[in-house]
Amino acid sequence: MKVIAPAAPLPTVLPGIQHVTRASAGDGLSTLSVWHQTLEAGAATPPHRHDCDEVVMCMSGSGEVRSGQDTLHFHAGCTLALPADGEHQIVNSGGTPMEIIGVFAATPVVTRDLRGAELALPWQS
Amino acid sequence: MKVIAPAAPLPTVLPGIQHVTRASAGDGLSTLSVWHQTLEAGAATPPHRHDCDEVVMCMSGSGEVRSGQDTLHFHAGCTLALPADGEHQIVNSGGTPMEIIGVFAATPVVTRDLRGAELALPWQS
Repeated sequence: MKVIAPAAPLPTVLPGIQHVTRASAGDGLSTLSVWHQTLEAGAATPPHRHDCDEVVMCMSGSGEVRSGQDTLHFHAGCTLALPADGEHQIVNSGGTPMEIIGVFAATPVVTRDLRGAELALPWQS
Repeated sequence: MKVIAPAAPLPTVLPGIQHVTRASAGDGLSTLSVWHQTLEAGAATPPHRHDCDEVVMCMSGSGEVRSGQDTLHFHAGCTLALPADGEHQIVNSGGTPMEIIGVFAATPVVTRDLRGAELALPWQS
């Protein structure tokens, strides 16, 4: 077991997205990763999908999760269940920063664009 | 994909422990569960272990995680990495309620006592 000290999300090359990996393979885990991110107002992830299940918890702010023609709204306290291989894009459509914790049933986390090509992530996953 | 509305942890048969399952198999997931719990001051989980990796995020309060003769302290903002099959007990040794989010790389979550016998959980896991 290991206790990991608090660490704030830091800027990434993705516009308006700050990230910190809270736990992953480097912490003795083999099938679990936890990311903590903030998205500035108007920021969005690229549309993407993962090879594993994902759960996102919205800690503050509000926004939308989009998949194809579908859009679902969420706000602080909501939980998003995103089963493996499902396309999704998270958008901060609110007027304030959005804080999210993303949990993945894999480490590292394989992330793909909508054509299936693996995306190189700018952080340890 | 699915957005799950906020829900507060509710009392359980475990003394001083409130629980809500934020996401699990019923939400289309096959390998991921998320629990949200509060432990009153002095409350503790039984010593136990899981067949899968677990990560615990301390959202407020402070406490200890114990494994055999080892004790590690943590507080709000800390993350606990608990690899599969590792014995652990979470104790609220602080003077205020402790809020934690527990993430598991399985659904349902198999929980065992220290002799390996499966424990019946008082919630959907």
